[in-house]
Amino acid sequence: MSQMIKAGLVGVTGYTGMELARLMVHHSSMELVCATSRSEAGKTLADIYPFLNRLPLGSLVITRPDPAELARECDVVFLAVPHKTAMEIAAALLAEGVKVVDLSADFRLNDQATYEQWYATPHTHPELLAEAVYGLPELYLDKIMGARLIANPGCYPTSAILGLAPAVSAGLAESDGIVVDAKSGTTGAGRGAKVPFLFCEVHDNFRAYGLPTHRHTPEIEQEVSKLAGTPVTLSFNTHLLPIDRGILSTIYTRLTREATLDEVHALYTEFYADKPFVRVLPQKQLPETRNVRGTVFCDIGLVVDPRTNRLIILSAIDNLCRGASGQALMNANLICGLDPDEGIPMAPMMP
Amino acid sequence: MSQMIKAGLVGVTGYTGMELARLMVHHSSMELVCATSRSEAGKTLADIYPFLNRLPLGSLVITRPDPAELARECDVVFLAVPHKTAMEIAAALLAEGVKVVDLSADFRLNDQATYEQWYATPHTHPELLAEAVYGLPELYLDKIMGARLIANPGCYPTSAILGLAPAVSAGLAESDGIVVDAKSGTTGAGRGAKVPFLFCEVHDNFRAYGLPTHRHTPEIEQEVSKLAGTPVTLSFNTHLLPIDRGILSTIYTRLTREATLDEVHALYTEFYADKPFVRVLPQKQLPETRNVRGTVFCDIGLVVDPRTNRLIILSAIDNLCRGASGQALMNANLICGLDPDEGIPMAPMMP
Amino acid sequence: MSQMIKAGLVGVTGYTGMELARLMVHHSSMELVCATSRSEAGKTLADIYPFLNRLPLGSLVITRPDPAELARECDVVFLAVPHKTAMEIAAALLAEGVKVVDLSADFRLNDQATYEQWYATPHTHPELLAEAVYGLPELYLDKIMGARLIANPGCYPTSAILGLAPAVSAGLAESDGIVVDAKSGTTGAGRGAKVPFLFCEVHDNFRAYGLPTHRHTPEIEQEVSKLAGTPVTLSFNTHLLPIDRGILSTIYTRLTREATLDEVHALYTEFYADKPFVRVLPQKQLPETRNVRGTVFCDIGLVVDPRTNRLIILSAIDNLCRGASGQALMNANLICGLDPDEGIPMAPMMP
Amino acid sequence: MSQMIKAGLVGVTGYTGMELARLMVHHSSMELVCATSRSEAGKTLADIYPFLNRLPLGSLVITRPDPAELARECDVVFLAVPHKTAMEIAAALLAEGVKVVDLSADFRLNDQATYEQWYATPHTHPELLAEAVYGLPELYLDKIMGARLIANPGCYPTSAILGLAPAVSAGLAESDGIVVDAKSGTTGAGRGAKVPFLFCEVHDNFRAYGLPTHRHTPEIEQEVSKLAGTPVTLSFNTHLLPIDRGILSTIYTRLTREATLDEVHALYTEFYADKPFVRVLPQKQLPETRNVRGTVFCDIGLVVDPRTNRLIILSAIDNLCRGASGQALMNANLICGLDPDEGIPMAPMMP
Repeated sequence: MSQMIKAGLVGVTGYTGMELARLMVHHSSMELVCATSRSEAGKTLADIYPFLNRLPLGSLVITRPDPAELARECDVVFLAVPHKTAMEIAAALLAEGVKVVDLSADFRLNDQATYEQWYATPHTHPELLAEAVYGLPELYLDKIMGARLIANPGCYPTSAILGLAPAVSAGLAESDGIVVDAKSGTTGAGRGAKVPFLFCEVHDNFRAYGLPTHRHTPEIEQEVSKLAGTPVTLSFNTHLLPIDRGILSTIYTRLTREATLDEVHALYTEFYADKPFVRVLPQKQLPETRNVRGTVFCDIGLVVDPRTNRLIILSAIDNLCRGASGQALMNANLICGLDPDEGIPMAPMMP
Repeated sequence: MSQMIKAGLVGVTGYTGMELARLMVHHSSMELVCATSRSEAGKTLADIYPFLNRLPLGSLVITRPDPAELARECDVVFLAVPHKTAMEIAAALLAEGVKVVDLSADFRLNDQATYEQWYATPHTHPELLAEAVYGLPELYLDKIMGARLIANPGCYPTSAILGLAPAVSAGLAESDGIVVDAKSGTTGAGRGAKVPFLFCEVHDNFRAYGLPTHRHTPEIEQEVSKLAGTPVTLSFNTHLLPIDRGILSTIYTRLTREATLDEVHALYTEFYADKPFVRVLPQKQLPETRNVRGTVFCDIGLVVDPRTNRLIILSAIDNLCRGASGQALMNANLICGLDPDEGIPMAPMMP
Repeated sequence: MSQMIKAGLVGVTGYTGMELARLMVHHSSMELVCATSRSEAGKTLADIYPFLNRLPLGSLVITRPDPAELARECDVVFLAVPHKTAMEIAAALLAEGVKVVDLSADFRLNDQATYEQWYATPHTHPELLAEAVYGLPELYLDKIMGARLIANPGCYPTSAILGLAPAVSAGLAESDGIVVDAKSGTTGAGRGAKVPFLFCEVHDNFRAYGLPTHRHTPEIEQEVSKLAGTPVTLSFNTHLLPIDRGILSTIYTRLTREATLDEVHALYTEFYADKPFVRVLPQKQLPETRNVRGTVFCDIGLVVDPRTNRLIILSAIDNLCRGASGQALMNANLICGLDPDEGIPMAPMMP
Repeated sequence: MSQMIKAGLVGVTGYTGMELARLMVHHSSMELVCATSRSEAGKTLADIYPFLNRLPLGSLVITRPDPAELARECDVVFLAVPHKTAMEIAAALLAEGVKVVDLSADFRLNDQATYEQWYATPHTHPELLAEAVYGLPELYLDKIMGARLIANPGCYPTSAILGLAPAVSAGLAESDGIVVDAKSGTTGAGRGAKVPFLFCEVHDNFRAYGLPTHRHTPEIEQEVSKLAGTPVTLSFNTHLLPIDRGILSTIYTRLTREATLDEVHALYTEFYADKPFVRVLPQKQLPETRNVRGTVFCDIGLVVDPRTNRLIILSAIDNLCRGASGQALMNANLICGLDPDEGIPMAPMMP
């Protein structure tokens, strides 16, 4: 076991930290050796997560976050803390020579000004923006493999970008007028104690939120613009689902020319042919969040509507796994020289 | 009590029948005297609906549907049966001189050919299409009051049309390129025993369905075209929510000119000033399905997005109450000379 | 409207306050004229509860709690605040001559020492314990009508006591060895912002809590002992359901003698013959929480098991309505000389 | 891969078949080579289970059940079909020399008459009853390893027996008067299309069912009697939870003598010390269904109540995994000479 890659996790008490702990249980080449939390230091993982009782990981003692110690113990560190906090720790860890996978938004936007505008805070480490690699393996595999610092994509952006990439890069969808109507499970809201996310406020209810300025907007626009080869402004809007996990994005585009479903389907199938975690569904099938629950799959369904000359793309992921910790683990695998799917669950939890 | 209006209900075993039974419990001027079902005839309402135990309505004995008998007993009859069946019973009842509120789609489309195309069946009573009044009280109050035959609007159309009416009729929203992204609770799928609607297939899951040819499309286009004064083709797409009741439609339009939220909000508030069941929410508030649960309210939230020059309208109703039986009861009240809100619950079930 | 009874509500932000607001919407003889909250004073009810938009009650301005002002404005005041706080306000209001319905536990236990032991706090107004009437109308109707101070029963006790009353008072069930296995919806946990009651902690999960010392135990034992005519110690244990509203108590007793279901059913039917809000279900029917949702009904199902010589009683209520605010409103009606069911909804929200 | 153990699955369309397919995705020593269904023959697994898209298992073509073919292709066959059907196929397969893990109830009861009484049907292969091994590894490990025919335990019995075993076999709990109050997720009701299990009939609802004669009663009594060394009659009662997976049994026993929680906890910990899939929780912790979701863990919490002299045992499993297909796979592993945990997921799906 001395050959195991040693990983650290800063911020274990949120849902992304919890999810990373879940995933590490089955990893055979990487081991979680540090888990930090200011509020829970001194407890074991099983103390705060009884689902880890009688598992080896359950006996890991939580420590207070200390970059020097993390650097001593770990080959790679996951940051599952809020933005702003993340950029400080990331810089400290990189200075100590540790690889970092940052699950926050701090290094996702290439442009400092855009970051500061949408997140309303100064970026204190702009020197790292150019180095950070946007960790979407389907688009940036080679860069990820050589990176020190991964900006792990946002959950909504992952679903939207993977859904749009083939059509936009092929020029089949107009880059203007795109609408992304996205719906997310409630783990996306985090694990903070807030009345609007109490069971009785979410259950048997449905609502939109954050319109029209969700912070994931510039991240989606940045990546879709690159794919389109032209600046894209789109309408991105979010809703809260009474489910634990899962994002479904319904993406409305207009076709630049007449196209059949056969043609569009072939384009998507080809685009993702060698990318096994994106599943372009058979024609007429539409994705469901449960079919990707607990995995890194992105399921894509395609609808061509000749009445309105639209291509409608439906893209489903698990917001916690593919949209956060599972993708982070794929990135950590890649920057540590492992296969991307080591320790990654393939079988969705059904039902 | 001899002055009570006598109502009949054809098709008591579905969710719309169940909802109508619920509403009639509190009605003080109208009484359910006939409830029919081929499969459950001979039982009492409380036998099939234990929630009616010890209530007077619970002891009503279900009968087999018989237009002559319904005509003898009733002043008005609700049809809560599938399309095709409804048109036959409606014609028979009208011939017997009874007023009819039809909850099916059979008389909603003014144009016979459109009906036959979207519903893939001949219309056997096209002579009634011109007479039938589309029962959306906010738009057709006067016509409803004088009608013999009400085509009770579909659930999705109710939410979409009420959401679009002020902007479209004022020419503020482009009539081209509208997208209605709608999400419905599972009662909308009916009460038939089908695997895809089992608890374990719907719970903790989210999916789209029926794209891009949901049968409510021509109904929405018909009414929005009238409001716009020009033929409108729009993209209408539906999703299944793991909740019992509620529709939220997120409606994307492009502004025909620059407009502030203040201006749009004033337009909507004015449009619905004397229509108490549509609630234009205060600015920045967005509707939630729970806030209308069990009522006929339609809650509307408005978002102006200058980045994309869009007006986004969020419209929430209870699909069973406003979207079906509650609206049917308002229509029945109106054609029987009662106030529209008699027997209509005002307080949503919260939470 | 000058004849309307004027009611006040201290503590409007919790679920019991919210439920009382919902109920008052339809009351035709009582009007909510004061609603207090320290944290939300100055806002209208519709500001915090958008479900009240466009309803008259929505425009009521929340004030800070002030016994003198409440006494000037109100005939009766509901206390929907935590125990300890309630006893102080109750005493102040009674001193001002206002009738009080206290939804907390402060006046439910006749014995001061028992209160102080189970609630681990001194009782500062023991002089009121003898005067307070336990507000379970099926057992104490006459006393309630003459009371100044109502101790509104706890949610679990309401279901357990109504379930046990006929069998225990008839000596049919052994008073020893009773087990009450109770399951409650999550509104019962209150509206405080706490991680264990977040949606993602409750949804798709089930657990027990508080075993074996739930504070409702002495309240149940007090009332069951009175019915049995002998001190009763029982095992009362609680579970958290991933639903909004509803309690189902499964109550295990041993028969003191052989008895048929016919006999037991007749006993229960007779006991509740003139008490319309308890529904002894037909034989073989078992209660469901949804059948009482939003109402004050208590549905009781009976099972006789000759193999184990047990009578098993299943008792379902809505914990917020019958278990709190609905029962409080019945009590307020009674102490103000109204019929108990004025303003009380009869039709459960189904589904 | 030629060394892979080849498994067959008869009855792939129900939830236990679906769960077995999920589990086989990750098995590295056993391969599903046959999956049968009369209604879906000819389709691939991915056709009926889109969650298997792009996974190797997804391309397996479903066939009609044929014992001869199953015997040719498979080393071991899982029967996920209803009782009665199972006994016929089991006998045919055994005659062909194939090992069988039967998930139905057909071989669980040692006594033919008891089976015929509770299941109201003749047993056509009583000659196999003595040979069949009750597949609860914690109790029958050695017998399982040498068996040809495994009677895979019922879901409720698994939770009840594991919960009771230490206390009953140690004589700490009275064998008389035991109450098992059990609550199950809705997958336990199967995947048949029936109105009572539609989403809108189960969601936001809770009810008991089947009282007091659930068919799992004699199975529990049989095993608990063996542990007690004396015939045990107990009260076993079941409830339907609005969750997908999970059983929580609250088990009420009376202590045969005074005992502290320390003592009881030590007894349980010792009993399960070398049985890693039963987790006796730390004192004061109570089990939650989510903590075992998707795994074969049985989590046990212990409560000693001196007021009532009771030991209350809370036992949680995943009804589909530990209660059916996961336990079946452990048994198949064991009878094929593999470690019991091969291919068995250790990390619960949280949340």
